[in-house]
Amino acid sequence: MKRLTILLLLSLAAIAQAATNQRAVVTEFADFLAIPNLASDAPNIARNAAAIQAMFAKRGASTRLLTLDGAPPIVVVDIPAPGATRTIAFYAHYDGQPVDPKQWQTPPWTPVMRDAAGNDVDWRNAATLNPEWRLYARSAGDDKAPIIAMAAALDAMRDSGRKPTVNLRFVFEGEEEAGSPHLAAYLEKYPDVLRPDAWILCDGPVHQSRRMQLVFGARGVVDLEITVYGPVKGLHDGHYGNWVPNPIIRLTHLIDSMRDETGRILIAHFYDDVKPSSAVEQDAIAKMPPVEADLKREFGIAATESDNLNESLMRPALNARGIQSGHIGAQASNTLQTEATASLDFRLVPAETPESIRKLVEQHIESQGYTIVRSTPDTATRLAHPKIAKLTWGAGYPPARTPLDLPLSQQIAAIMTTAGHAPVRVPTLGGSIPMYLFQQPANTPVLILPIANHDDNQHAANENIRLQNLWDGIEVYVGLFEGLR
Amino acid sequence: MKRLTILLLLSLAAIAQAATNQRAVVTEFADFLAIPNLASDAPNIARNAAAIQAMFAKRGASTRLLTLDGAPPIVVVDIPAPGATRTIAFYAHYDGQPVDPKQWQTPPWTPVMRDAAGNDVDWRNAATLNPEWRLYARSAGDDKAPIIAMAAALDAMRDSGRKPTVNLRFVFEGEEEAGSPHLAAYLEKYPDVLRPDAWILCDGPVHQSRRMQLVFGARGVVDLEITVYGPVKGLHDGHYGNWVPNPIIRLTHLIDSMRDETGRILIAHFYDDVKPSSAVEQDAIAKMPPVEADLKREFGIAATESDNLNESLMRPALNARGIQSGHIGAQASNTLQTEATASLDFRLVPAETPESIRKLVEQHIESQGYTIVRSTPDTATRLAHPKIAKLTWGAGYPPARTPLDLPLSQQIAAIMTTAGHAPVRVPTLGGSIPMYLFQQPANTPVLILPIANHDDNQHAANENIRLQNLWDGIEVYVGLFEGLR
Repeated sequence: MKRLTILLLLSLAAIAQAATNQRAVVTEFADFLAIPNLASDAPNIARNAAAIQAMFAKRGASTRLLTLDGAPPIVVVDIPAPGATRTIAFYAHYDGQPVDPKQWQTPPWTPVMRDAAGNDVDWRNAATLNPEWRLYARSAGDDKAPIIAMAAALDAMRDSGRKPTVNLRFVFEGEEEAGSPHLAAYLEKYPDVLRPDAWILCDGPVHQSRRMQLVFGARGVVDLEITVYGPVKGLHDGHYGNWVPNPIIRLTHLIDSMRDETGRILIAHFYDDVKPSSAVEQDAIAKMPPVEADLKREFGIAATESDNLNESLMRPALNARGIQSGHIGAQASNTLQTEATASLDFRLVPAETPESIRKLVEQHIESQGYTIVRSTPDTATRLAHPKIAKLTWGAGYPPARTPLDLPLSQQIAAIMTTAGHAPVRVPTLGGSIPMYLFQQPANTPVLILPIANHDDNQHAANENIRLQNLWDGIEVYVGLFEGLR
Repeated sequence: MKRLTILLLLSLAAIAQAATNQRAVVTEFADFLAIPNLASDAPNIARNAAAIQAMFAKRGASTRLLTLDGAPPIVVVDIPAPGATRTIAFYAHYDGQPVDPKQWQTPPWTPVMRDAAGNDVDWRNAATLNPEWRLYARSAGDDKAPIIAMAAALDAMRDSGRKPTVNLRFVFEGEEEAGSPHLAAYLEKYPDVLRPDAWILCDGPVHQSRRMQLVFGARGVVDLEITVYGPVKGLHDGHYGNWVPNPIIRLTHLIDSMRDETGRILIAHFYDDVKPSSAVEQDAIAKMPPVEADLKREFGIAATESDNLNESLMRPALNARGIQSGHIGAQASNTLQTEATASLDFRLVPAETPESIRKLVEQHIESQGYTIVRSTPDTATRLAHPKIAKLTWGAGYPPARTPLDLPLSQQIAAIMTTAGHAPVRVPTLGGSIPMYLFQQPANTPVLILPIANHDDNQHAANENIRLQNLWDGIEVYVGLFEGLR
């Protein structure tokens, strides 16, 4: 009995210690998430970078800022292994997507813990932290979670007395959600720092089955804003509604000419450059856990645009993400609007590029009778052309894929399996990260290892991280930091 | 020489007197326009009604308020003619369309005078008022101008010592821009007051040629808000964009299934109830001054949806007046939206009714695979139906027409011609006023006689009245008040 009591006491002590450690991680994370992090918000971006440097300096790592005029700094953290010849870099980004605070249950940069039922939780005073609780804040999942998890993994290694056998380098970007406009210039300016022997990109969510995943590619992306025009001033739609062109109607027809309701892109030659999936990729997709039924329930949808989610991500996509003209609801008025605007993005797969699809899209828009302009047309321009479309393209970047059977992939998968997190192997992420930049020019191995929950509302309101995903991420990072050779 | 000097002095005195009178009218009008007048803004609606009563009481007319619970009051002004047996009613409305102050050059309820070049004018201290100057404010044209013009016409009659030979009754409604939801109830509650021998409805703009017009009909109207749905929460459009239904794409396809880019409505049987134009109507249309070339220049459009503006107004119209989902510009994010909403209106011609077209529209939407709901669907409803459209119909009302060759039409046209304003005869107004209510049940003659400039930006930002239109309106009202038998 005495021995059992001692064991129980030890066990309770371990539990208490674990809860204390977890609370310390979440406390540090909440402070980090409280710093607003739009890439365009230079003062707060600087505060984020300083917070990251302090976070890792506290743990004895050497840190530095890479800088470029007009760009958020890249924070670099080095954990050298004495005698090691290889350097493995782990990437994450500390900036977040724009927010619409009206859509958030609580302000986006005021972290709040909620239980699975959505009730607020007083986690600072709770005996233990339920792993199903979630911390809500912009970038809780995308992409500050990996940063805090790497810091916590270093603590665990310190506590266990173990050391890495390869040089570890953490690289944290500050403008990924703005399309990484300076990443290429950074890679060119700092080749010594940013040309490691391999990259592990820590971004995106885990598999929807909640299993961790190892991802071998990412779709490219380029966004496009289209504005089409009606009269130069708002007109009474009763007096002119059948005669003056309606810009909303023009825009809906233009969008529909580009994409159908099944996701099929109708732009001529759009699929000409698309490489078919390889046999290895098809096999990996076939082995991925089925998630469609659960996702449909979770998303509240009775039907989907296409049959197989994973196959659909191997294809390019045209997404309409915003459309605006005039007003709805109580603000609606009987006005023939002056213009209508849609924000689109294209997700690209090998071997498409932003340049290749831009040409096809513009040819298509011209084929619909439009004259393309790059700035708001004046009246003379409007009088000269029956249909005018103002196009504003984002920076964008091409897709990338890494072979599924690379030696490094097998080593990482083995470490994850040993840590209890055998990964789902995914040929490509549906979302976009600038993976191609890391690969070039030396064809450096690049893999993606996400830790955030798939239902983290990334890019949307009420973004969150599920605590268990944070703990899983820390475990996997400890395994990699100690086990990579 | 002495005689010429006296004449010149007399002439200058007359000019000075005219300028003084005009300034007094504009001063009184500007005070009236400074009162906000959304139909839903009960306190300010009451202030408007009180201001109108004071305006006419000052001129010795008897005034009263007709009231109904929850409705803006109707202001009634009576100018009886001793011994007269006929009562001719003049209608206008004192409420205005909703405003988006961001779109206005100056605040909508702070009247500002500008010259033809758009420069502010210090009209209170100008020697004379240039008739091309415009007073900018919500309802300057639609529809407070007729109210102030009627008051000024009474002043002119008083100055000339002339009296009406029919009883004149002015009837001013306070919720026309909200769709006149209580007008039918008012007409039923106050039959003695609101069943005159004829109606002259003073709303809408003059002909685009700047000639005054006499209008014999108005299109009906009914508005419809449609919301279609995507996932129950915003999703990353890279991860799910080819698989989860995109509500923007659904909405654009639904709108396009209903209307093409030439204004043609594609809903089955939509034109079955439409009566073809009569020979008299076609003749009147043929005699209307051509305005298309000028309007295209004014509106900055190189092409139109259909060939002939006046013919197009004889047909029903489907107008898209607002569309909203997600964000554009700097606020755009890579989010698959939860819903997309469009605000539409239908303009109706005899013998369509809101009820008849509502049935056709809903059959059409169902034929596109949609389940129609009347309130926001819960998750169970979303999971049960692949495509859901929430429809919210406005009140609306049917169209109306009055025969072109009615005796009253000829009398009014003759008076206008004598006053120097020979009217363009228009079979129907493109816009909608609830003319049918005034006709029923006794087939009372109803004509529309607008005074506002055609380019007054009614319903839109920077609404205005051109001063010459105000003076023309006063002249015509004086002629009618003195000359109607």
